[in-house]
Amino acid sequence: MGRHRWGWGLQEHALSLDAVRPRVEPFFGEVAERPQAAPRIPVPRVQVPEALSSFASASDDVRAAHAMGKSYVDRVRGFRGDFSSAPDLVVTPKTEGQLASCLEVAEREALSVMVFGAGSSVVGGVEPVVGAGHRGVLSLDLGGLQAVREVDEVSRVARIEAGALGPSLEAQLATHGLTLRHFPQSFEFSTLGGWIATRAGGHFATGPTHIDDLVQAVKMITPRGVFETRSFPASGAGVDPNRLVLGSEGRLGVITEAWVRVRPRPTFRHGASVQFDDFTAAVNAVRELSQSGLQPANCRLLDPIEAMVNGVSTDSSSVLVLGFESATHSMAPWLDEALRITSRHQGRARPRSDERSDESTAWRQSFLQGPYLQDAMIRLGLIADTFETACLWSRFSELYRGVVDVMTDALNRICGGGVVSCRFTHVYPDGPAPYFTFIGRGREGAELEQWAQIKQLASETVTALSGTITHHHAVGRTHRPWYEREVPKPFREALEAASLQLDPARVLNPGVLLAR
Amino acid sequence: MGRHRWGWGLQEHALSLDAVRPRVEPFFGEVAERPQAAPRIPVPRVQVPEALSSFASASDDVRAAHAMGKSYVDRVRGFRGDFSSAPDLVVTPKTEGQLASCLEVAEREALSVMVFGAGSSVVGGVEPVVGAGHRGVLSLDLGGLQAVREVDEVSRVARIEAGALGPSLEAQLATHGLTLRHFPQSFEFSTLGGWIATRAGGHFATGPTHIDDLVQAVKMITPRGVFETRSFPASGAGVDPNRLVLGSEGRLGVITEAWVRVRPRPTFRHGASVQFDDFTAAVNAVRELSQSGLQPANCRLLDPIEAMVNGVSTDSSSVLVLGFESATHSMAPWLDEALRITSRHQGRARPRSDERSDESTAWRQSFLQGPYLQDAMIRLGLIADTFETACLWSRFSELYRGVVDVMTDALNRICGGGVVSCRFTHVYPDGPAPYFTFIGRGREGAELEQWAQIKQLASETVTALSGTITHHHAVGRTHRPWYEREVPKPFREALEAASLQLDPARVLNPGVLLAR
Repeated sequence: MGRHRWGWGLQEHALSLDAVRPRVEPFFGEVAERPQAAPRIPVPRVQVPEALSSFASASDDVRAAHAMGKSYVDRVRGFRGDFSSAPDLVVTPKTEGQLASCLEVAEREALSVMVFGAGSSVVGGVEPVVGAGHRGVLSLDLGGLQAVREVDEVSRVARIEAGALGPSLEAQLATHGLTLRHFPQSFEFSTLGGWIATRAGGHFATGPTHIDDLVQAVKMITPRGVFETRSFPASGAGVDPNRLVLGSEGRLGVITEAWVRVRPRPTFRHGASVQFDDFTAAVNAVRELSQSGLQPANCRLLDPIEAMVNGVSTDSSSVLVLGFESATHSMAPWLDEALRITSRHQGRARPRSDERSDESTAWRQSFLQGPYLQDAMIRLGLIADTFETACLWSRFSELYRGVVDVMTDALNRICGGGVVSCRFTHVYPDGPAPYFTFIGRGREGAELEQWAQIKQLASETVTALSGTITHHHAVGRTHRPWYEREVPKPFREALEAASLQLDPARVLNPGVLLAR
Repeated sequence: MGRHRWGWGLQEHALSLDAVRPRVEPFFGEVAERPQAAPRIPVPRVQVPEALSSFASASDDVRAAHAMGKSYVDRVRGFRGDFSSAPDLVVTPKTEGQLASCLEVAEREALSVMVFGAGSSVVGGVEPVVGAGHRGVLSLDLGGLQAVREVDEVSRVARIEAGALGPSLEAQLATHGLTLRHFPQSFEFSTLGGWIATRAGGHFATGPTHIDDLVQAVKMITPRGVFETRSFPASGAGVDPNRLVLGSEGRLGVITEAWVRVRPRPTFRHGASVQFDDFTAAVNAVRELSQSGLQPANCRLLDPIEAMVNGVSTDSSSVLVLGFESATHSMAPWLDEALRITSRHQGRARPRSDERSDESTAWRQSFLQGPYLQDAMIRLGLIADTFETACLWSRFSELYRGVVDVMTDALNRICGGGVVSCRFTHVYPDGPAPYFTFIGRGREGAELEQWAQIKQLASETVTALSGTITHHHAVGRTHRPWYEREVPKPFREALEAASLQLDPARVLNPGVLLAR
């Protein structure tokens, strides 16, 4: 058992197709299992360099496990047995010294380096590519660096190695009665370093939504020396060096550890599920909530299709899952204020105090199952993917309508029908972060071409309707064409200059984030 | 009347020395007014370029008004009539086109450009300096760009020109019932662009403390094109381009406008003054408050000397000025929770609801008068200055004790005695931002040498005791030696590469933030 070769998570947690069929057959009719192909793994192009041999592997299994991320495209390729993107070797340094020597050797031997946390990228961010002028590519796996190294309980900060998986760092923090409370959907199979490199979105629907807000200082090994920032609660000294590391997607160096803000586990929880007949009224309620200063920890709005697909409603209601939490005091007055707002917008609330409501439990279960469900759908020949954005409140209605229309039309034309739904993963005083899911029927063998057409339309539509190309999935290689249009040209040139300064031989993550 | 030539603000608001003497004579004995010298303004080194003549001035008055900022050193030089740093000309573009042509002409004619908002820098950030290989220097005044250009009331964001002074942008926003609520001490005589370029700290003691948190998008004219980011509530797409502009102190380009987050004026206010006999208990109370999630808008702790000097206490108490505000709901439950915390640490609270307490009013009055008071002290021959930092809670006690000891010793040795006091301007879950004030007696003619010795000791001590060189005063030229030690070398090299990419002729703000 253990990690699934091409799918999400652990093989033993894969969903049975019989359990999944009843959820999709109402939309698609009968769906049959597609045949899966045995893996084809290429021969390495280069030998393992002597200097790295004590912590390197060139076995087929290890190389296959580092061949790609977990995007829809990656999984379909894995399902088809296509592991042609496997690296020539995988190195797993146990120390920063070993890691630095990987970069030296790579530069000397003309090898590209792909930085690998736990491989959950859905944007082509970990797939090995041989850069221009290079002879081969190694995957640099941070799995040997997982320790919580230091905890400052007074200041509530902890120094944690970048390769720590979510559950590992939480278990280590729990011995101090503390938690990071950063729970992206990939939590179990993604790392602190990956979250920082990609500016991951986490647990809190408002306030500290991105890992950016939880990072206090970072250490990054670059080909030109150690980039280690000092640990301050805040500073106004020039451009913030931490912010140059956050989102750099491995183009400036390899993050090895970070000081992060931690907190005690919440002991007071108050929440409610609120149903709305009218989606627009629900959106207005959430906007008012986001601008109230109440800062709910949870504030996830599901549109009618999303609520139905996730088993949170059975009619055409929109559902808002609302939660407040605190380690120090009751949040009842906060919830009261929030429900006053939702009721002004005709929301019907079902409060809960300590016990989780059925809707909340259903939603959480569904959230964690999402990536497993996607695997099952792939086995059933369905094209199932998600994309997400953020936009101003004043633009949301047009963006939502535009995306739903374009996607519905695209699914009809390209897949002969399908489903598109939306939820808010995070909300801000100035706008929401809508997250779209689409499912369509794939034509056997043509799924990747169908997907590419749909993805292109989705990205064009989001960009045209004033949304960012990604609120938290990152850029990688998949989103790069739209990222290049999104950010100003002088910024891209400045970032390229910074990247060239720190990685002059261009060994790191070729083609990720930046073309050059 | 109008702007003071070398001192703070408006001449008509200068404090009478008779009003100030009773505040300083308890510490220093009798203080007499020092003689002020007539201004000496140098002749321009270069002619006004023809292409800029329609919005340029080379008059002595205008050049003198752009000769320096408002640091202690600047004011003493102004008091002594030393305007040797006056620029050769001052340009005040009314459009971005004119601004871009300033950069073109400067590059072509080998002139340095100093970007000038309203000149409140206390770190040498606006003083004209002729860069290497240049023939002269022009001061680029943003005062012609002050409009609120667009307001999105639904999303609560506004597009505002960078030269807008605090009161001007607030007056324009008020016509929409909105406010930015960013009130640095320099509010009346500083600009949005300056706040962004220097990462200014503002009104809120917790939460959105820095202008960074209020900026949604920026537009910056660089010598290599327009750097304009798109308006999103949030994004996870790569390195955040806004964060490269924030704190860039004019080394990447000239900020011309920004989209900022605005809000309705607060209508619910609850607050209290809390007295503590023991400063350590007060610090612990504030730490617990900062970690409670209550997020008070105001949470300023004054140590016993600071409280006494500001007329907020008459004994040796420490005083916490605490305030909550909201535009949508009563904050009484928030204040109740906060006072439960302070009372656990033996704080004696005097709550207020709508009316401001005496302590709060005294504090606010004192806060706004601060820069005027500094002028009066200079006229009385006193060395009076402030410096600020931020550090972890676990380091604060050692930093506070260390700074007070070093400064007390320094003032005794260098000034024959003096006063040092501290307050928190902002607090975070992981640490406070302590702000120190020191006053000593100057030896006539030797004040700048005395100050330089003290400043050097203060900066070394803060740095050695794990504080940042600046929480909100910025780097400029004054703090550069310590900034260079604070940030990692690879970061500095990356930032220099970015700066060189966007400003290859190095016309912008030579010596500010970066040495090269």
